[in-house]
Amino acid sequence: MAHLLLINCPDEPGLVYKITGVLFGHQLNIIRNGEFVERHDNHFFMRTEFAGAVEPATLLAELEAVLPAAAHIRLTNNHRKDIVLMATKEHHCLSELLVRHAFGEMNARVLAVVSNYEVLGDLTRRFDIPFHYITHEGKSREAHEAEVLAVLTQYQPEFVVLAKYMRILSSDFVAHYSNRLINIHHSFLPAFVGASPYAQAYERGVKIIGATAHFVNEQLDQGPIISQSVIPIDHTQSAREMAQAGRDVEKIVLARSLKLVFDEQVFVHRNKTVIFD
Amino acid sequence: MAHLLLINCPDEPGLVYKITGVLFGHQLNIIRNGEFVERHDNHFFMRTEFAGAVEPATLLAELEAVLPAAAHIRLTNNHRKDIVLMATKEHHCLSELLVRHAFGEMNARVLAVVSNYEVLGDLTRRFDIPFHYITHEGKSREAHEAEVLAVLTQYQPEFVVLAKYMRILSSDFVAHYSNRLINIHHSFLPAFVGASPYAQAYERGVKIIGATAHFVNEQLDQGPIISQSVIPIDHTQSAREMAQAGRDVEKIVLARSLKLVFDEQVFVHRNKTVIFD
Amino acid sequence: MAHLLLINCPDEPGLVYKITGVLFGHQLNIIRNGEFVERHDNHFFMRTEFAGAVEPATLLAELEAVLPAAAHIRLTNNHRKDIVLMATKEHHCLSELLVRHAFGEMNARVLAVVSNYEVLGDLTRRFDIPFHYITHEGKSREAHEAEVLAVLTQYQPEFVVLAKYMRILSSDFVAHYSNRLINIHHSFLPAFVGASPYAQAYERGVKIIGATAHFVNEQLDQGPIISQSVIPIDHTQSAREMAQAGRDVEKIVLARSLKLVFDEQVFVHRNKTVIFD
Amino acid sequence: MAHLLLINCPDEPGLVYKITGVLFGHQLNIIRNGEFVERHDNHFFMRTEFAGAVEPATLLAELEAVLPAAAHIRLTNNHRKDIVLMATKEHHCLSELLVRHAFGEMNARVLAVVSNYEVLGDLTRRFDIPFHYITHEGKSREAHEAEVLAVLTQYQPEFVVLAKYMRILSSDFVAHYSNRLINIHHSFLPAFVGASPYAQAYERGVKIIGATAHFVNEQLDQGPIISQSVIPIDHTQSAREMAQAGRDVEKIVLARSLKLVFDEQVFVHRNKTVIFD
Repeated sequence: MAHLLLINCPDEPGLVYKITGVLFGHQLNIIRNGEFVERHDNHFFMRTEFAGAVEPATLLAELEAVLPAAAHIRLTNNHRKDIVLMATKEHHCLSELLVRHAFGEMNARVLAVVSNYEVLGDLTRRFDIPFHYITHEGKSREAHEAEVLAVLTQYQPEFVVLAKYMRILSSDFVAHYSNRLINIHHSFLPAFVGASPYAQAYERGVKIIGATAHFVNEQLDQGPIISQSVIPIDHTQSAREMAQAGRDVEKIVLARSLKLVFDEQVFVHRNKTVIFD
Repeated sequence: MAHLLLINCPDEPGLVYKITGVLFGHQLNIIRNGEFVERHDNHFFMRTEFAGAVEPATLLAELEAVLPAAAHIRLTNNHRKDIVLMATKEHHCLSELLVRHAFGEMNARVLAVVSNYEVLGDLTRRFDIPFHYITHEGKSREAHEAEVLAVLTQYQPEFVVLAKYMRILSSDFVAHYSNRLINIHHSFLPAFVGASPYAQAYERGVKIIGATAHFVNEQLDQGPIISQSVIPIDHTQSAREMAQAGRDVEKIVLARSLKLVFDEQVFVHRNKTVIFD
Repeated sequence: MAHLLLINCPDEPGLVYKITGVLFGHQLNIIRNGEFVERHDNHFFMRTEFAGAVEPATLLAELEAVLPAAAHIRLTNNHRKDIVLMATKEHHCLSELLVRHAFGEMNARVLAVVSNYEVLGDLTRRFDIPFHYITHEGKSREAHEAEVLAVLTQYQPEFVVLAKYMRILSSDFVAHYSNRLINIHHSFLPAFVGASPYAQAYERGVKIIGATAHFVNEQLDQGPIISQSVIPIDHTQSAREMAQAGRDVEKIVLARSLKLVFDEQVFVHRNKTVIFD
Repeated sequence: MAHLLLINCPDEPGLVYKITGVLFGHQLNIIRNGEFVERHDNHFFMRTEFAGAVEPATLLAELEAVLPAAAHIRLTNNHRKDIVLMATKEHHCLSELLVRHAFGEMNARVLAVVSNYEVLGDLTRRFDIPFHYITHEGKSREAHEAEVLAVLTQYQPEFVVLAKYMRILSSDFVAHYSNRLINIHHSFLPAFVGASPYAQAYERGVKIIGATAHFVNEQLDQGPIISQSVIPIDHTQSAREMAQAGRDVEKIVLARSLKLVFDEQVFVHRNKTVIFD
């Protein structure tokens, strides 16, 4: 069985030697190993995939003994993650994820879809996933978010994915899913933060547009970026045509980013990501 | 001999028919033809490359007779443009252009290089181009720009190219070269306007960086974009390494944009470009 | 109502003038116009989108009167195309098309899916599309193709799309759908023609892989290319991981190519495509 | 002072532990570390950048003691490589390298340029590099190569770079520079092997063209690929225009590949490269 060891801590000499020593002492076989030191603040990251029989408590105790006190150590068997998807009206990201999920291509179990509109209910039900329609009409943001949270809580998701969910979430909401709430933004951030990025892109006359998948934090479109991708455009494209072309980029960037996150290839550090791929 | 006809005007029915009728009446042979209508404000653009003997005044008169009064009509034989290059310390854009120029690959004649530092003088002289070192030290911006303008004026350039010229130019200066002053900005605009875009990109943790060639107007980094290009980066790259990687993009984007401009493939319209390539 | 005029013929002076003259004579308003002359053999292509009331027979007669005898003239209202999809076991291209179709994003009506395996039947039925399972086991190629043709014939499709249909089709079969049979090949053609291109790519150690959508002709993987796209890879990826990564490229390239074909933006000329986009 | 340790050998458990143990035992500080195991044949690769005072003979002896007998161990201080450039008539790759060299941007010392034509002599001399014109006219391939080899031998280059050298080299010649002879091929290999790849690309109607930098071995265009890059094209471009557009790709791919090789980031293994970047 394959295991994953994820470590990050202040850098110091001998870390790789000490960590691999613990693994070697248990005859564990390293399948894949990556290390990185962020030189800016001398922080060490290591992700190790290994095979072999292991008693987790023992291994963790031995690693703690050789690592700095401040080290974050995570030992996992990279289980399928329980997730809930949120969307508004556009289908492309949601259907991309539902299809991949239906064919076992995501390291995740989609427990439910939550939407503030009804339009994606039919799509969701085609894939036998519960669909929760929670309109925001006539409700304060607080009241609406409380309803959404109530539904989410009943599913206990490890991650919540905003697959083109077009409402801004409050800091309070975001705080419930720190580093576990992922959004796809339809621009190449930090260009075109906020609403209607394609209209902004058209107005500015850019020659490339893109999409950004990121963890959501309390500041709009400012969270740690996981992945970005772009496509060329030209003057012949209206804002609407840019939006159409951009959808292909959005869904692929989101799917790829979720693969990285669910396969535990992503560390979040100081509003940035360190990714082992 | 090849001629170029560049027309833009408010759209109305029959424009292509009328314009090609004038050309056909003179037995002129169309080599390449492009039209575009900006639907946002119904503005018509046409670029026609044609061959044949032609009396310019006659042709223009006939075109004026069939086109709306507001039409801009330009007839040219796409001559080599006279240009001056401005740079500061980084060589990559300047050397890219000097090399292309030396091998006849630019539709331009580089009359001189102007710099606020001495470091690129040796490179420039290797290519037998006059180098003007005009330090900004101890001078007001106005005084420095006046000196630069004095040199430029003596060369009468049709275009001034900022090949990594790292000083902000005043609106007064820019006004002398409306739609004739081209800059390469080392970011994917409108992301990271202003100083140190690579440091900003590093800080933000983006996964793609880029470069933007644009006409300069009175607002910093806000002029009409000609071309943009990007490359992927990751967490392992420092701001300095991003800058290194970005240089290849910058110089290619600048060179490609100048080719478009000097070959008269670019219309500027309402702070955007319409490009026939 | 919008109309499309598609013309190709040997080039000669005045073609644009004459064609736009016919349109102008009927007060038809050109929305979008593209021309191209292939200089290699002096062949002229023109695609015009126009609006206005028109009697097709009259318009065609007038165009024929001014165009060379060899001209191909096609006047269409760009209707939704009737298509049948064929697939084998992999779902990614098929689901991409079924989802787009379900949301009205293809200029086509998917009449049926035909497969030589049963595995994609469940997916197809989720989208309420007839699924025809026609195994090739225990049959000669001729016998199998005859069965497939019998089903296709009953649907009278204008186009047949091979959405990862992994069997080679005979020349006889292909002849039934000349320039109407579209395939997605999982490599950057002409690299890695034939079977197992990802295994070939792994073996060769390439640093980029891609996908190619093309019309099928009687020579394997040699038909006119519509669109291609690529992604970078590196030495860490096995042939299987390349295949996974390649799927995203394949499905997007296929969907984009079908958009071009179904919107009648593609001319086929001498085993190549001329595309107006 | 920074050192580089490059190891490759059959994989076995504990390699990273043992290697980092030797380094840790000498108080050497790892700056950057990369490992990779090629699962196909279970071969282990490791590249370690470290700082600290070290007696090379001692370190190598200790590493040999803990590593398999078949291990290749290389300890280097990543010195500037002595190289000779070869070219024919096209300047773009040569000038790219000469400019980078002039500004200290290559980890190499260009000792000389060898060409079978005179045309690049002027460019080379602008950068104060010896230029050897060795025509092939009226000589057998053997005689010409013998002359070239005689010149190369006098410079003792560690690497020979074919910067658009357009003659096929014999196996005998290649054998002198095994894994030290680098070529830029003007296509996306393995598409369009051999002569005139842009003409082939035009003929085939591809929608993307590219360039490939590779080590040269005895089979034409079959050596280990270091880097590849591509650009989109369309039906409007002639073979000549493709060649022009391709030049920008060629020179950047070559320069980037040389950076990887000269910084010792490239392992060659079974006709493929393993690259740590």
